Amino acid sequence: MADLDELRIRIRQFAEARDWDQYHAPKNLAMALIVEAAELVEHFQWLSEAQSQALAPEKLAQVAEELADIQIYLIRIADKLNVDLLDAVDKKIAVNAKKYPADKVRGSAKKYNEF
Amino acid sequence: MADLDELRIRIRQFAEARDWDQYHAPKNLAMALIVEAAELVEHFQWLSEAQSQALAPEKLAQVAEELADIQIYLIRIADKLNVDLLDAVDKKIAVNAKKYPADKVRGSAKKYNEF
Amino acid sequence: MADLDELRIRIRQFAEARDWDQYHAPKNLAMALIVEAAELVEHFQWLSEAQSQALAPEKLAQVAEELADIQIYLIRIADKLNVDLLDAVDKKIAVNAKKYPADKVRGSAKKYNEF
Amino acid sequence: MADLDELRIRIRQFAEARDWDQYHAPKNLAMALIVEAAELVEHFQWLSEAQSQALAPEKLAQVAEELADIQIYLIRIADKLNVDLLDAVDKKIAVNAKKYPADKVRGSAKKYNEF
Repeated sequence: MADLDELRIRIRQFAEARDWDQYHAPKNLAMALIVEAAELVEHFQWLSEAQSQALAPEKLAQVAEELADIQIYLIRIADKLNVDLLDAVDKKIAVNAKKYPADKVRGSAKKYNEF
Repeated sequence: MADLDELRIRIRQFAEARDWDQYHAPKNLAMALIVEAAELVEHFQWLSEAQSQALAPEKLAQVAEELADIQIYLIRIADKLNVDLLDAVDKKIAVNAKKYPADKVRGSAKKYNEF
Repeated sequence: MADLDELRIRIRQFAEARDWDQYHAPKNLAMALIVEAAELVEHFQWLSEAQSQALAPEKLAQVAEELADIQIYLIRIADKLNVDLLDAVDKKIAVNAKKYPADKVRGSAKKYNEF
Repeated sequence: MADLDELRIRIRQFAEARDWDQYHAPKNLAMALIVEAAELVEHFQWLSEAQSQALAPEKLAQVAEELADIQIYLIRIADKLNVDLLDAVDKKIAVNAKKYPADKVRGSAKKYNEF
């Protein structure tokens, strides 16, 4: 089974084999990433919240592809910036746990509800 | 060291402990994800491509936090949809390898250059 | 009362007076525009559809500011590209009217429901 | 020649004739707007800043259509929220003029350079 680090190397080799590294400035990759994020949003824009949680199999497969595209660009930009994604997430969860203490924010989306 | 699956469980528990699960319809999470993607884009919008590859340490730390935020929402939405992120990426790389054969697209961003 | 063309001139002068024109490549302005669009999305991400239609006055004032920011960057990028916004909208509505005939798509968001 | 207010009425009638008003909660329209903004960004993601200012006629026509799509959704969401777009822009420019005094921020994109 693939792990994030192995995927990082494969994505890097994929870009190098196509001589695409020249286009992969973080600025450009951030643009590509948000374009993929918008393709995800597009699947949900006219659905109710409930419908978005109960996708038909074909639609779910399309959504999974968008999630993969976002993950690929996220891995790629982190690689170009020498950021360890898992480590960054690990630290951010700790920051969030302090910022949003469970006993104070329970059930409130008004001021909190952000990771 | 954390892996993606362990982070998935921690993020799920984080949301449950705050009773946020009620807000985490995939529709809403997709919105939250693109908002984080835009915060990444904002760091780069007035920089040249070269500048975006050579960030000062403080700026890089901020960018790493945005990458973490995107990763967290990506893990969360995949969890809510029962999508295996690493498996989805694995498959998408294979699809892309067929779609963009290295020997045909080398160095061209015009029609190709997409993961 | 201001019209779009007068605003276009004022926004142009605003940028020139600050020597910002050098940063206003369409690429960069497109990034700035989507960042503002995300600030709009952020206001709505945890609201239900019904709540999003019934904003409190203070929240509505903040949303109106985001709409203004999007409009400003839209005017600016159109100006830099010599695109007449109102004319482009006029033409696009005509295209859409052909693409989505009212008698065929009534009430369906599945395949249609796009301007 | 069309003005913004006339377009607002035409876009409203367009939606009503297709019974789409039911889908046009501001939450959903904000999603649709950012999707169109991303289609604009996509045109520029692999271009240099200089290339983005010198588009070929065919590409420019496509970009103009994206600008129109963004403008249409912006008009639509403002209409649903009873926000006067031109008035909001007029006020925001005044706010920005105070926030970014021309004599203090000239040529600096570091802390300023935002409308």
